[in-house]
Amino acid sequence: MNSALPSVATRALTRADCQALDARDPLAACRARFALPEGVIYLDGNSLGAMPRAVPARMQRAIEQEWAVGLIRSWNDADWYPAPQRVGGQVAALIGAAADEVIMADSTSVNLFKVLVAALRLRPGRKIILGENANFPTDAYVAGGVAELMGAEFRAVDADAVLAALDQYGQDVAIASLTHVNYKSGQVYDMAAITRRAHEVGALVVWDLCHTAGAMPCELNACEADFAVGCGYKYLNGGPGAPAFVFVARRHQAAVQQPLTGWHGHAKPFAFGQTYAPGAGMDRMLVGTAPQLGLISLEAALTAFDGVDLQLLRAKSLSLTETFIALVDQQLAGQGFGLATPRDPALRGSQVSLTHEQGYAIVQALIARGVIGDFRAPDILRFGFAALYLSHADVWDAVTALQTVMARREWALPEHQAKKAVT
Amino acid sequence: MNSALPSVATRALTRADCQALDARDPLAACRARFALPEGVIYLDGNSLGAMPRAVPARMQRAIEQEWAVGLIRSWNDADWYPAPQRVGGQVAALIGAAADEVIMADSTSVNLFKVLVAALRLRPGRKIILGENANFPTDAYVAGGVAELMGAEFRAVDADAVLAALDQYGQDVAIASLTHVNYKSGQVYDMAAITRRAHEVGALVVWDLCHTAGAMPCELNACEADFAVGCGYKYLNGGPGAPAFVFVARRHQAAVQQPLTGWHGHAKPFAFGQTYAPGAGMDRMLVGTAPQLGLISLEAALTAFDGVDLQLLRAKSLSLTETFIALVDQQLAGQGFGLATPRDPALRGSQVSLTHEQGYAIVQALIARGVIGDFRAPDILRFGFAALYLSHADVWDAVTALQTVMARREWALPEHQAKKAVT
Repeated sequence: MNSALPSVATRALTRADCQALDARDPLAACRARFALPEGVIYLDGNSLGAMPRAVPARMQRAIEQEWAVGLIRSWNDADWYPAPQRVGGQVAALIGAAADEVIMADSTSVNLFKVLVAALRLRPGRKIILGENANFPTDAYVAGGVAELMGAEFRAVDADAVLAALDQYGQDVAIASLTHVNYKSGQVYDMAAITRRAHEVGALVVWDLCHTAGAMPCELNACEADFAVGCGYKYLNGGPGAPAFVFVARRHQAAVQQPLTGWHGHAKPFAFGQTYAPGAGMDRMLVGTAPQLGLISLEAALTAFDGVDLQLLRAKSLSLTETFIALVDQQLAGQGFGLATPRDPALRGSQVSLTHEQGYAIVQALIARGVIGDFRAPDILRFGFAALYLSHADVWDAVTALQTVMARREWALPEHQAKKAVT
Repeated sequence: MNSALPSVATRALTRADCQALDARDPLAACRARFALPEGVIYLDGNSLGAMPRAVPARMQRAIEQEWAVGLIRSWNDADWYPAPQRVGGQVAALIGAAADEVIMADSTSVNLFKVLVAALRLRPGRKIILGENANFPTDAYVAGGVAELMGAEFRAVDADAVLAALDQYGQDVAIASLTHVNYKSGQVYDMAAITRRAHEVGALVVWDLCHTAGAMPCELNACEADFAVGCGYKYLNGGPGAPAFVFVARRHQAAVQQPLTGWHGHAKPFAFGQTYAPGAGMDRMLVGTAPQLGLISLEAALTAFDGVDLQLLRAKSLSLTETFIALVDQQLAGQGFGLATPRDPALRGSQVSLTHEQGYAIVQALIARGVIGDFRAPDILRFGFAALYLSHADVWDAVTALQTVMARREWALPEHQAKKAVT
């Protein structure tokens, strides 16, 4: 699909061009799997994914039948008990992992804590957790917390200096803790090359896949990744605060000692013994009772990926972001916008981030027009393109709305300048 | 209400006596706040609380309106963002804490990890985490994991030796980590006396309130408790895997350094800075994005406590358990049952545990008759009495079913002997 865009170079792109791309979209039918409100173009699926239509009926059954009628029996009879493993196996298929290498548990931050401590324990004598300066804050905060607890050191470098830092610090590096797709710029990092270099110096790699899973393919095992974490509520569309996932490569599982030794990670949780013995495989990554309502919502949501070829998803995602960039170039030149996302499609996730000194207010004005993106300090307008439910016509309409916001100076209205907390 | 029972001493208790108690029950109307399946007497609210009728409509609105239509805007517009604090404040009212001393987050096990590490940091130089041998396993497992991580030592003693151990180990004790109501026996420990003795030797106390919150009053602040944790899915009826709560006494909050330094615990999570700065008050106990669907269910569920006087709740709970014990004495003498729960009402939580060498199979046979309790190894038949939705007639009918199971030897059927995992 991406190949349709060189026409932009010779004449202006039109809405009809976008519609023509949509007419050839092999994933167009997936849009019907989502409930999207009238009058909204939703470009914030990278913060909270849209609601898959499969969710409400499944949740109603979970609440009014499995909980209300089945009561405690549903842990067995409704297969609640094996849900963390079962849903983990479904997520595994989206990130290049085997089904028995992924489990759903807790939040991304909590899972990151577990794998960082576990990885440090696998590299005794090495003290450095290597991060990068532009990583999502929780990655830095958790690594700092782990370093303080374990007598290790968290050292962040610029993203383009990670390979050099691996060489420089060499055998002092226990872990490189990095994100595959940057939350702010949408830039994709080279998982294969970084993992290889880390392994060459004997370090382990933890990948944060929050902006990868469900957005684009990822080959954890082909890259020989060690650990990964990621959230269920962005491109996986699991709902607000959905459970997160954690990946441990099979070769590490038997040696992993994660520090949150709760009863659901025990080899025999229902034997109620007083001595901890870690469960087999990924089971030991569990801690407390699984958040079933969130897991059930997420499992229903994942049916939106049924039969979806991830290569087609990636091609459509790139076509959407390519179209967006082309239209911004074409329609918004001279309005003060910069592009924070790489133009090279190979380096671009499923989002486009613009910069503008009035970024916050412009996003608010766009939201008032029904085009929902979000803002990241200091000046980033962030637009996520969930290929399962967006069309090229949506992209056209979003850029048109942005033109209107700028032309009418709607961003200057007091209600769009006033700050609100957003996630 | 409890005073009605001495009649048992002079003549046999009848179902009419139970109905008479129900006729005078000031909380009888609360039963209508719950959906309970036909033909079931639910004595397992101490594992998974019954579903409050307020939940389904609230969840439908959360999913189909707030998520599907409001999308990311609902973090502000539907007040998702302050839900951990808001719901925590509601739970605080049930456990003798101030609203700003409780927040909802993660699971009980994860919260226990946070407060144990934080408490150890408040007592540098002290090495012992004192527990008790019959505690719920996750309390021992997590304490063991924390001890290993922090170079501390987890030492468990028998419950009746806790005060002596505090004296014996004295200034070596950093923390006493105990449960207010034992999960297996239903015995209540003396929070005030143990906390006082711990403070006398300079130790801090962490109370696990999983079988307390919503079951009986508890006076954390009157006892000068330091920390507490507990779950949302038992007597609080929040639904399977509901978020847990954590309490930190206000006097400790500013000094608390918990190790799971995720972005939602940051003072300014949406400033996206790279350096962690803990949030004010209880905010720093947060880690990742709050599990909103679970929180919304729990908040709706808590309306079942609206206007409920906790002293009346306690009185009814004791009347139910007293009646159950009296009926077991009266109807099941000589059948091999023992009583694992104290006869002294002051020492009894909201459950009664019987012992029987065929305990597992008897529980299965009871469940087949619609009387749902649970089994805890090696020989405990555990019956929880949630006073909001149970009646004395239910107690009569449950004991009658137990008589039938024993009289017809239904426990000996092969399907009741076969082991299943239960939570």
